[in-house]
Amino acid sequence: MLRLRRVAIDTYRENVAYLHRDCPLYRSEGFQALSKVEVQAPHDDGAAVLAVLNIVDDQAVVATDELGLSEPAFDQLGRSPGEPVRVAHAEPPASLDAVHRKIQGERLELEDFLAIAKDVTAHRYSKMEIAAFLVASAQAGLERDEVLHLTRAMVETGERLDWGESLVVDKHCIGGIPGNRTSMLVVPIVAAHGMLIPKTSSRAITSPAGTADTMEVLARVSLPSEKLREIVHRERGCIAWGGTARLAPVDDIMISVERPLSVDAPGQLVASILSKKLAAGSTHLLIDIPMGPTAKVRRMDDGLQLRKLFEFVGDRLGLHVQVVITDGSQPIGRGIGPVLEARDVMQILRNEPEAPQDLRQKALRLAGRVLEFDPDVRGGLGFDIARDILDSGRALAKMEAIIESQGPNPEPATPARLQQDVKSPASGVVSAIDNLLMARIARLAGAPMDKGSGVDLFKKTGDPVEQGEPLYRVYASFPADFHFACDLVKKKPGYVIEEARK
Amino acid sequence: MLRLRRVAIDTYRENVAYLHRDCPLYRSEGFQALSKVEVQAPHDDGAAVLAVLNIVDDQAVVATDELGLSEPAFDQLGRSPGEPVRVAHAEPPASLDAVHRKIQGERLELEDFLAIAKDVTAHRYSKMEIAAFLVASAQAGLERDEVLHLTRAMVETGERLDWGESLVVDKHCIGGIPGNRTSMLVVPIVAAHGMLIPKTSSRAITSPAGTADTMEVLARVSLPSEKLREIVHRERGCIAWGGTARLAPVDDIMISVERPLSVDAPGQLVASILSKKLAAGSTHLLIDIPMGPTAKVRRMDDGLQLRKLFEFVGDRLGLHVQVVITDGSQPIGRGIGPVLEARDVMQILRNEPEAPQDLRQKALRLAGRVLEFDPDVRGGLGFDIARDILDSGRALAKMEAIIESQGPNPEPATPARLQQDVKSPASGVVSAIDNLLMARIARLAGAPMDKGSGVDLFKKTGDPVEQGEPLYRVYASFPADFHFACDLVKKKPGYVIEEARK
Repeated sequence: MLRLRRVAIDTYRENVAYLHRDCPLYRSEGFQALSKVEVQAPHDDGAAVLAVLNIVDDQAVVATDELGLSEPAFDQLGRSPGEPVRVAHAEPPASLDAVHRKIQGERLELEDFLAIAKDVTAHRYSKMEIAAFLVASAQAGLERDEVLHLTRAMVETGERLDWGESLVVDKHCIGGIPGNRTSMLVVPIVAAHGMLIPKTSSRAITSPAGTADTMEVLARVSLPSEKLREIVHRERGCIAWGGTARLAPVDDIMISVERPLSVDAPGQLVASILSKKLAAGSTHLLIDIPMGPTAKVRRMDDGLQLRKLFEFVGDRLGLHVQVVITDGSQPIGRGIGPVLEARDVMQILRNEPEAPQDLRQKALRLAGRVLEFDPDVRGGLGFDIARDILDSGRALAKMEAIIESQGPNPEPATPARLQQDVKSPASGVVSAIDNLLMARIARLAGAPMDKGSGVDLFKKTGDPVEQGEPLYRVYASFPADFHFACDLVKKKPGYVIEEARK
Repeated sequence: MLRLRRVAIDTYRENVAYLHRDCPLYRSEGFQALSKVEVQAPHDDGAAVLAVLNIVDDQAVVATDELGLSEPAFDQLGRSPGEPVRVAHAEPPASLDAVHRKIQGERLELEDFLAIAKDVTAHRYSKMEIAAFLVASAQAGLERDEVLHLTRAMVETGERLDWGESLVVDKHCIGGIPGNRTSMLVVPIVAAHGMLIPKTSSRAITSPAGTADTMEVLARVSLPSEKLREIVHRERGCIAWGGTARLAPVDDIMISVERPLSVDAPGQLVASILSKKLAAGSTHLLIDIPMGPTAKVRRMDDGLQLRKLFEFVGDRLGLHVQVVITDGSQPIGRGIGPVLEARDVMQILRNEPEAPQDLRQKALRLAGRVLEFDPDVRGGLGFDIARDILDSGRALAKMEAIIESQGPNPEPATPARLQQDVKSPASGVVSAIDNLLMARIARLAGAPMDKGSGVDLFKKTGDPVEQGEPLYRVYASFPADFHFACDLVKKKPGYVIEEARK
């Protein structure tokens, strides 16, 4: 048997095993083309991981009598360095047969989706295989029963929270609009009203900020589940990172392939969102679908179809879903990137006059709809109640209490040091802002890892501008990032200016 | 800038870049989720490679001021260790847009396939992205015009041989049948007749032997192109490995994803085979489609449809294609694995009485059809001419001349040392042999890397057997391989015995 070694390489959600080319026990070439091996710790509970095999020609990485595992794979196996392991040819995961039937255009059943979800959760799928499942599902499309099965399978292969109350509300945006940090306003408003809103969010994967990234500017977001439970019961809400609990773990793995591939089919989207919310114990959910020429949903038809799919799956899984289709024609708020977005949120909570009105209005609208999940709130009055809570300072007080409970950030980040203003090439009116480009510029500038970096918008659609007047400012901390962002700005500034008639 | 380092890890046709987590220049996390980076050698012709990024926590792999490239990526960049390189966020390859359109169910045009082929050849696609293209093409299916475009694109993105003659013949089997080493018989027969048959073959990827692997038991197969050309003009034929020339390089890359995924759609198959043959300069091609319950093609309908697709694409690209559908119900010949197959071939060429008759008959049939590409051979007479050439010893003489020209193997391998006979569990008649299982057993035993390993079949379908009589023998050189193969044999021996009525 070989000695186990931890190879200090982070292969990002794909297991990799490293075998020396001159290993006397196993002939590496025999394994390589088959692509996957099973690494087993013997005399044991049968702990095993599947991994893609890389062949090593350097004893410094692995010796000939060693078997190396990349960081994620090593952690999964849960054995110590030096322990004996053996290697076997990996059988393809049994559920891959269902993926092949999907490629053939067949309709899959609940048991198929369950088998796929179990194998994916156990890291038995390579990224290629996950890509095959996603593309096959995206192309033929999942029928709505299949979306239901997939959602159920994703919930059942993870943990599930129970808050012990009959009304547990949440809101979720399907994403794609930079800025748009409404959750950090909706949570304090709704919690101040007394409804339970335990908001756990993801960190950004390919966007310039997730709610968890932005909240982290103000407070700790990575909290042990006991602590989180205590905060939620006391404050009626929280804004935390959802990664600590194993809620629908399939989703995290699939997203790691979906995002780089930009495969984002309606069925996957619905299953991804609803499985997370069901696992998080929500009973009532408001979904925000922004629509616009550079949003995820570009036509009303598509928005309506997506709405029906959310409703169908939600109803059958006992989750009351309401869907609103909102304006997704441009970024919401001013800041894009954690620090800048947190500034916007706090300006609104503090009722400061320079607070971005579009973000305020949208948050009130969403909070109002969530408040109407309360049987005691008369239909149509939610918005007014939300505005009262915000204007009276009760939302700010609730936010401060939540921050205090989660643990305030002792050294809040500030906007980054390197800055460049992007100026209007002409006088006229801003006629369009490209969501995708603004997100990409902020991302290149360093968001969300570097909290203070991003983009601050001075002008929005419809605003008049003079030639040479700044449209937005790019913030970055690292010269390489600043360079990447400014390079893109030069090529594609993301704004369309309709020149004034002279 | 970072200093380039060669990381001695063979990542098998996928480029990987290694960056230390604490690299002061680039913040690794910013890149990781985006998944791909572009590594550039500056002040230069703009040499650049795209690579998937792995984050390293060990200075022994890469230091914080270094950028590591895996072996294939390092070789592609073609720079020396220590040279300065810079890293940029990789734009997704432009042709990925066409893949997304394919996922949406659109029909692609020649320019789309050309763009995809160029980007794949330049290693701009990750395996995930190739999987997306393959699955999208497999599921909706490529229309025959699309198969034509894809074939043309695969030819045009590589080199193309020109033999300077108007009749350059070849034969090709779509694969899936163990044993079946007909090319090594067809080439000497056809070359002895005087027709030009410059046969370049692949090595096995997931099968227990390719023609190149088996020929290598007898002679050198990796030959410089000048040498190959000289041999072909003198002997009228060769049996060499095709990997040295850059013929349809897209095909090799796509196959490295197709095989582990077991995605093998008709359109891909036809484009893969015909592009290689066109690039190799063939003018007339005989395709062998074996059909049977464990073959690639299982029903006559599918075989006929595949035949039409070969004919359609071949005709439009100026390659005269003939297709024969043959018996693929069981392995052909006795040996499975390079040494055992080479033994079968030489027994037939030497007209030894114990030579496997099924392989002899099939090779004569195929050689006969190839001979009929000669305008001077009357239709229907090919088989008899082929048999005369074989029986008279002229085929053997030609094979010996080809071996002599390519360079005989000074130490031909022999069957492997570890052996186990697999015995019949009952008396009766062999009613079925599973192609897939026999291939898998031979593969696990070490074929094709370990030349002497594999399986030797003593009984074929229809043969009577006594209980306890050996059905086949497993050969292996390495204890681990022997163990893998014998384990599978115990679970699934691959033979069905119909018990004799008592």
